[in-house]
Amino acid sequence: ASHLEFTEHPHRRHNPLTNRSVLVSPHRAQRPWQGQVEPAAEEQKPTYDPKCYLCPGNSRAGGKQNPKYDETFVFTNDFAALLPDTPSFEQQDGADQDLLKVEGVKGTCKVICFSPRHDWTVAEMSVDSLIGVVRTWTEQHRLLAETDYIHHVQIFENKGQAMGCSNPHPHCQIWATEFVPTEPAVEFENMKSYMQRKRSNMLLDYLAIELKAQERIVCENNHFVALVPFWAEWPFETLVLPRTHCRSLQDLDSNQQEGLADIYRRVTCRYDNLFCCSFPYSMGLRQPPTDGKDSYEYCQFNMRFYPPLLRSATVRKFMVGFEMLGEPQRDITPEQAAERLRQCPEIHYKHKN
Amino acid sequence: ASHLEFTEHPHRRHNPLTNRSVLVSPHRAQRPWQGQVEPAAEEQKPTYDPKCYLCPGNSRAGGKQNPKYDETFVFTNDFAALLPDTPSFEQQDGADQDLLKVEGVKGTCKVICFSPRHDWTVAEMSVDSLIGVVRTWTEQHRLLAETDYIHHVQIFENKGQAMGCSNPHPHCQIWATEFVPTEPAVEFENMKSYMQRKRSNMLLDYLAIELKAQERIVCENNHFVALVPFWAEWPFETLVLPRTHCRSLQDLDSNQQEGLADIYRRVTCRYDNLFCCSFPYSMGLRQPPTDGKDSYEYCQFNMRFYPPLLRSATVRKFMVGFEMLGEPQRDITPEQAAERLRQCPEIHYKHKN
Ligand SMILES: O=P(O)(O)O[C@H]1O[C@H](CO)[C@@H](O)[C@H](O)[C@H]1O
Ligand SMILES: O=P(O)(O)O[C@H]1O[C@H](CO)[C@@H](O)[C@H](O)[C@H]1O
Repeated sequence: ASHLEFTEHPHRRHNPLTNRSVLVSPHRAQRPWQGQVEPAAEEQKPTYDPKCYLCPGNSRAGGKQNPKYDETFVFTNDFAALLPDTPSFEQQDGADQDLLKVEGVKGTCKVICFSPRHDWTVAEMSVDSLIGVVRTWTEQHRLLAETDYIHHVQIFENKGQAMGCSNPHPHCQIWATEFVPTEPAVEFENMKSYMQRKRSNMLLDYLAIELKAQERIVCENNHFVALVPFWAEWPFETLVLPRTHCRSLQDLDSNQQEGLADIYRRVTCRYDNLFCCSFPYSMGLRQPPTDGKDSYEYCQFNMRFYPPLLRSATVRKFMVGFEMLGEPQRDITPEQAAERLRQCPEIHYKHKN
Repeated sequence: ASHLEFTEHPHRRHNPLTNRSVLVSPHRAQRPWQGQVEPAAEEQKPTYDPKCYLCPGNSRAGGKQNPKYDETFVFTNDFAALLPDTPSFEQQDGADQDLLKVEGVKGTCKVICFSPRHDWTVAEMSVDSLIGVVRTWTEQHRLLAETDYIHHVQIFENKGQAMGCSNPHPHCQIWATEFVPTEPAVEFENMKSYMQRKRSNMLLDYLAIELKAQERIVCENNHFVALVPFWAEWPFETLVLPRTHCRSLQDLDSNQQEGLADIYRRVTCRYDNLFCCSFPYSMGLRQPPTDGKDSYEYCQFNMRFYPPLLRSATVRKFMVGFEMLGEPQRDITPEQAAERLRQCPEIHYKHKN
């Protein structure tokens, strides 16, 4: 064929958010796999685990005790990667400053338990409980945004052992920092220059294209659309976009909060149903800096899922070698991934009867 | 303390090659780990495995048969991510071109077996055999550089199941492409602008700083220095730099080839000795584009090791959550990692008596 076919020919797609590319090798999906097989996740968990440091009433490292919470529960991470009292920046003197650049950084890390139930995951929770989670995010984001020294608030969930999650109790984390981390800084820069060039919002324009094409949509509700982005790196990566312009959680009204809770459940439920397993992923919210330096009109709130699984509950994609040294590479196309996720039901396989 | 201490206070370091940062949280190294434990690598392997598709004389997928090679052996990957005959670029028409950018890409993928011995790893091989590997790299790089449609040659080794390596037989890969992948493109851009600003070579200036400081050096020979870079992301990441200016393998004389083989063995041997295990990593060579568009004087040849292990043979660092959404994070400092690697012997633990 002299015409480029996405499902046949190696090609490269460009990510306008990061200005980086991904190599797509669709013809390679059938290669045999003799490599590492992930341990299958333990499926039966107790509703309460006396050894879990996130369960209600239990003691945590350092001796603090959790309350007997019955919805969400927020606390400061006992092993926080960031601390509020780091001495401020003091570059060492000398000629090294051009190559050995360093700055002391302040910040704080929080943990949000989603539910007292040790055995639940987002995919199995009710939309009502997840509305509680979204409201807790919104409240925490607001509090941190109001904190003077905090300029960026990263909310994320590591789900599953394959994603380095050390506790299966449903929870997420917030790492709030006085600096804007590398990835969001790059994305906001690119969103901004798009707005300057085109006088419109990058991700709203992108959503319009996707709604027209319908090829990469996974599921939708009145307020949000979940899709596999054209430039997805992970096999079943998804991007959740609001239908209208909103920059952060603070811009969502209560209908949109419900919409976000609904789509959070539906996407994770489809994930679990894809390989009939508790599907690992990192989820993250993208929100503008809280430094008040800009109105950040060019930013569009969004939620992403980066899941590692490729072919089954135990065979994952490794981002190594060429991916570390060169650029990310994927086998199945984003369109094929979207098609498979579209075919997954939204009733959890464990609840089927 | 009001002074920033690298071993105590959270801080951020800047990588001048990528212009991205890494968050260092040294106080966090002692947190308990209840997460995923890697399967310990199977230690006793046969010298020849009749089921291995890389062993001499065996058949590969697709039916081709390996020769009875006794040094290195090169062939085109049977499941190549890149193909030489992809139809050339044909952007789809329409208004999507700003956000849905795609190009067909040509390339080729090769595999280099390092030795007929199925049970060896680089750490256990003789310097003489590794000189053969370096010469094979040089020859393959030259052949690909001379190939008209190839503009970048990525040589890398994925070692160990934790790095997605599907076959323990010692080997590396080459992915050669008509495009310059994202990571090298960014690094060459930054090396170039450093040269324009400072009239000197970034990585030679950097090496001079490190040789003076001595804090992050792991080991050296007459031609190469292995160190943990100031901006290392992975716990025991290393960077191997030539002492003099050379852009690619083509610039190395035979003494330097021997020096590279020597340091390749010594670094990987220290890695194995660190946790007394067959230490997983991705290794890669950084070399300028082969497109002839520039003399690439500002580029400096280098070799990197990205290893995932953090605390033991079975506890790894996960680059997830904050790392995917925000920026890479590490616990132990690069100086602490270098100190530990410096203390490792250069005689392999398996050969000790
Ligand atoms: O080619 P292999 O060793 O089968 O595969 C491995 O290396 C490739 C190149 O780094 C990666 O794309 C794969 O994800 C990884 O599993
Ligand atoms: O905080 P946790 O869940 O113990 O740790 C996990 O998430 C962190 C934030 O993404 C990562 O830095 C760790 O590598 C990972 O294991």
